[in-house]
Amino acid sequence: MQKSPGAVLVLGGARSGKSAFAERLVTETGLSRHYIATGRAWDEEMRQRIARHREDRGEGWETHEEPLELAARLNDVAREDRAVLVDCLTLWVTNLMLEERDIAAEFAGLVEAIATMPGRLVFVSNEVGLGIVPENRMARDFRDHAGRLHQRLAALVPEVYFVAAGLPLKMKG
Amino acid sequence: MQKSPGAVLVLGGARSGKSAFAERLVTETGLSRHYIATGRAWDEEMRQRIARHREDRGEGWETHEEPLELAARLNDVAREDRAVLVDCLTLWVTNLMLEERDIAAEFAGLVEAIATMPGRLVFVSNEVGLGIVPENRMARDFRDHAGRLHQRLAALVPEVYFVAAGLPLKMKG
Amino acid sequence: MQKSPGAVLVLGGARSGKSAFAERLVTETGLSRHYIATGRAWDEEMRQRIARHREDRGEGWETHEEPLELAARLNDVAREDRAVLVDCLTLWVTNLMLEERDIAAEFAGLVEAIATMPGRLVFVSNEVGLGIVPENRMARDFRDHAGRLHQRLAALVPEVYFVAAGLPLKMKG
Repeated sequence: MQKSPGAVLVLGGARSGKSAFAERLVTETGLSRHYIATGRAWDEEMRQRIARHREDRGEGWETHEEPLELAARLNDVAREDRAVLVDCLTLWVTNLMLEERDIAAEFAGLVEAIATMPGRLVFVSNEVGLGIVPENRMARDFRDHAGRLHQRLAALVPEVYFVAAGLPLKMKG
Repeated sequence: MQKSPGAVLVLGGARSGKSAFAERLVTETGLSRHYIATGRAWDEEMRQRIARHREDRGEGWETHEEPLELAARLNDVAREDRAVLVDCLTLWVTNLMLEERDIAAEFAGLVEAIATMPGRLVFVSNEVGLGIVPENRMARDFRDHAGRLHQRLAALVPEVYFVAAGLPLKMKG
Repeated sequence: MQKSPGAVLVLGGARSGKSAFAERLVTETGLSRHYIATGRAWDEEMRQRIARHREDRGEGWETHEEPLELAARLNDVAREDRAVLVDCLTLWVTNLMLEERDIAAEFAGLVEAIATMPGRLVFVSNEVGLGIVPENRMARDFRDHAGRLHQRLAALVPEVYFVAAGLPLKMKG
């Protein structure tokens, strides 16, 4: 199996502190800091969430907005002297579903792209599979996709954390 | 308290990789492999999930379908030279509720049955209590039942794992 | 940052055994046992849940009902020779939201109050952010509030546990 030497996956629930922890992982590298935001500001609530994330992050980040072409964008942004934070994979999955992309092909493309990518890569994603089965079919498909992506990435990258209440639990590494 | 020497409980969310991990626990015993499927193929989506599980599992398993009489079936199947995977307890709980069985009596029966059972037993179950309180009363009752069953089994068996992103976290053992 | 020397946060899902574990933390101190119940018995189901909790707890507890003024009540109850269990923070957050209190101010008040509080304090709270994003706006706000409160308390107190299937996982301490 391919391994991605400089990559880490940070999982956690809503407001678990996973983004702040991921930002610390980036900052402590001392590399130049890049942020790939996958979220789309499609309503006022989402705009506020994005603005709050940006404010929490503080100065010193170069931000790239990329709702869909994540592998291609990572290919452009990742370099030996850079640390890249992707926040978050679950919004990327949402966007892929809304655009009716081929999910399996997209996941394969991402996994292939990052396997040999230079620099430090930090992926943030929401764990969404620990509640009651959703009544909505699309929500069930979404959590299946998210779960499969997490499994694939967790097998690929050398470090995985689960964050709760701002506290990281190392699952791998 | 009774202890079940050869049993293990594997908890995890949807698409967490818990079944694949449980299958590895069975396979690594080298014993003959038995699979008790509690799910009922009541619609096309469920039929697909069951078929995918069977495919993921691969060859070399003897499959038993048992939606309700789990303790009795385990009594028939479990033997010193066998490893038995039960996938999953949450579907069994769902079936008990739909049949309006006495849940407390059923749980007591299962716990009593497995306390002295030979061979290796691996129970897979969905953790469903980490989302927002469901609006639906039956869903609330379901997660209460599932949570209570997990507590009882976790107290009984010597090994418990929580699986996320395909990675097992040992909670006990 | 302020530290609360005698405080502990116990997180877990529904029916995870978090209350029973928190009660053991209190009992093992040997101090006099106080229980602050934040839940309101607004319907029959809630009355039953409260009664069951009380029964599970057993004898030897002094119970205080406090749905809203948690910091003030803790100031009254906490003493060097007492162990105080607050069960649970998520119901307190629910009550604050229903009363349209200033959530940020209430959280700041609680954090300030407990930073110098004597005796043993055990806070139980539901982790609710690990399911699908709720469709209901109030539910989304609720899980955001709960998540932020957990992060603040987890940074403040020296011990944090995550409980699943009755088994505590130490996240901090």
